[in-house]
Amino acid sequence: MTTPERLSLNQKTVNQWGLHDVVDGCARHGIESVGLWREPVAEVGLDASAKLVRDAGLRVSSLCRGGFLTAREERARTVALDDNRRAIDEAAVLGADCLVLVVGGLPDGSRDLDGARMAVTEALATLAPYAGERDVRLALEPLHPMYCADRAVISTLGQALDMAEPFPPEQVGVVVDTFHVWWDPEVWRQIERAGRRIASYQVCDWVLPLPADVLLARGYMGDGCIDFRPFTRAVEAAGYTGDIEVEIFNAGVWASPGDEVLATTIKRFEEYVL
Amino acid sequence: MTTPERLSLNQKTVNQWGLHDVVDGCARHGIESVGLWREPVAEVGLDASAKLVRDAGLRVSSLCRGGFLTAREERARTVALDDNRRAIDEAAVLGADCLVLVVGGLPDGSRDLDGARMAVTEALATLAPYAGERDVRLALEPLHPMYCADRAVISTLGQALDMAEPFPPEQVGVVVDTFHVWWDPEVWRQIERAGRRIASYQVCDWVLPLPADVLLARGYMGDGCIDFRPFTRAVEAAGYTGDIEVEIFNAGVWASPGDEVLATTIKRFEEYVL
Repeated sequence: MTTPERLSLNQKTVNQWGLHDVVDGCARHGIESVGLWREPVAEVGLDASAKLVRDAGLRVSSLCRGGFLTAREERARTVALDDNRRAIDEAAVLGADCLVLVVGGLPDGSRDLDGARMAVTEALATLAPYAGERDVRLALEPLHPMYCADRAVISTLGQALDMAEPFPPEQVGVVVDTFHVWWDPEVWRQIERAGRRIASYQVCDWVLPLPADVLLARGYMGDGCIDFRPFTRAVEAAGYTGDIEVEIFNAGVWASPGDEVLATTIKRFEEYVL
Repeated sequence: MTTPERLSLNQKTVNQWGLHDVVDGCARHGIESVGLWREPVAEVGLDASAKLVRDAGLRVSSLCRGGFLTAREERARTVALDDNRRAIDEAAVLGADCLVLVVGGLPDGSRDLDGARMAVTEALATLAPYAGERDVRLALEPLHPMYCADRAVISTLGQALDMAEPFPPEQVGVVVDTFHVWWDPEVWRQIERAGRRIASYQVCDWVLPLPADVLLARGYMGDGCIDFRPFTRAVEAAGYTGDIEVEIFNAGVWASPGDEVLATTIKRFEEYVL
């Protein structure tokens, strides 16, 4: 059995592994593409990471993450924009298909949700051209509304598309992550509308009961209640032909041997996603 | 200081109290309206509860709850419809302004979200006329999307309005509960669209971090990140002039003395909602 060529392993799925382990694991399991995170890349070093991944013949389907752009205070905004420019530079070096933006929640003590959303729109106007000049595509990620207060004030695909609209699709795209959007009654219409804006398609399951830390609620495809094939068909009908990234944050998965995680990921991907 | 006359106390906010305590507490604190739940009403008896509340001069702003209408299997559907007819009868006896419907999550083992939503629409076609004949108004409650899998497949106000549309507004309305809809980028447009469909306006806050049981994530107004006044203004601009119900599920609130809860509820209501 050969591993599906469009399967990309987001390295967070094997959080127990460093980048060297991830690259070796992909070779062992026939995985051709990875989603990277800035922190483990920094541990190895940016250029060394880029070489490591390139030498292994791996595609980089995404880099996580830029964002956290909701602060209104001048100094905090400057710091955030600088950090995002660095993230864009890193995505360029790594040859990532896109830089995922988790845009941030409400600033500390703030109740001004519309203001926080406006701040993201303003920041995008600064960052999109910078990314464009470096051939990096920003990918706005709508997060599940349960993360609206503390992680991402973009809560639906429709809203992400509204924010992306002023920019060329090759500069600002969107992420379709089943975990975040599966509940949305508008999702089919918005995926169709997204078309070429889809910069990344990510899968993992919504598993009940939610764990105490809802950040770790993601599960293997098939363990929860999401029907993946309609999503795969919908993004394909919209024109997306890129990698399909598996990104699972789950304490149980992180406590298992990495090779087991990869084997299960591949199996479930074939069984539920394609 | 007089208690705001539109403040309605949902009895779940003082879950530590039975209905007699609730009625006495309202008298002590000058609260003129209550939201009731079927289980504590049943403990006292339906007719006795109706008399108790009526004799105390209290309005009943809502009865919680009907719903759980997503089953596709014939026998389960019959049981659910029968139970909802009973809930409608009870709402009529209690003189409740509306019967809140929490429509239910995915049936056990199902991943057919669109099918579950369809089942609700079909059930409504049966229940709405039944309610209409008894002068009871059904109120579809969109729940926060984090409850989509296990409690309510209606996740946005827009979706609730789409489902309500085939029915007269006096038969099928919607609930605007800040906790459930505050994150929704479409919410202002949908409240305006709702107009006379707004059957109930409920307030409580979104407090971080979420507790291990997300059902108990609700907090006093002012403890979290929701800006209530824009919601109050929006529902009023849409034409809603009814009671404003405070419904808090919170382990800490339930562990406090009931009179303290009522005093805090009134204080926060004046401070943050009006």
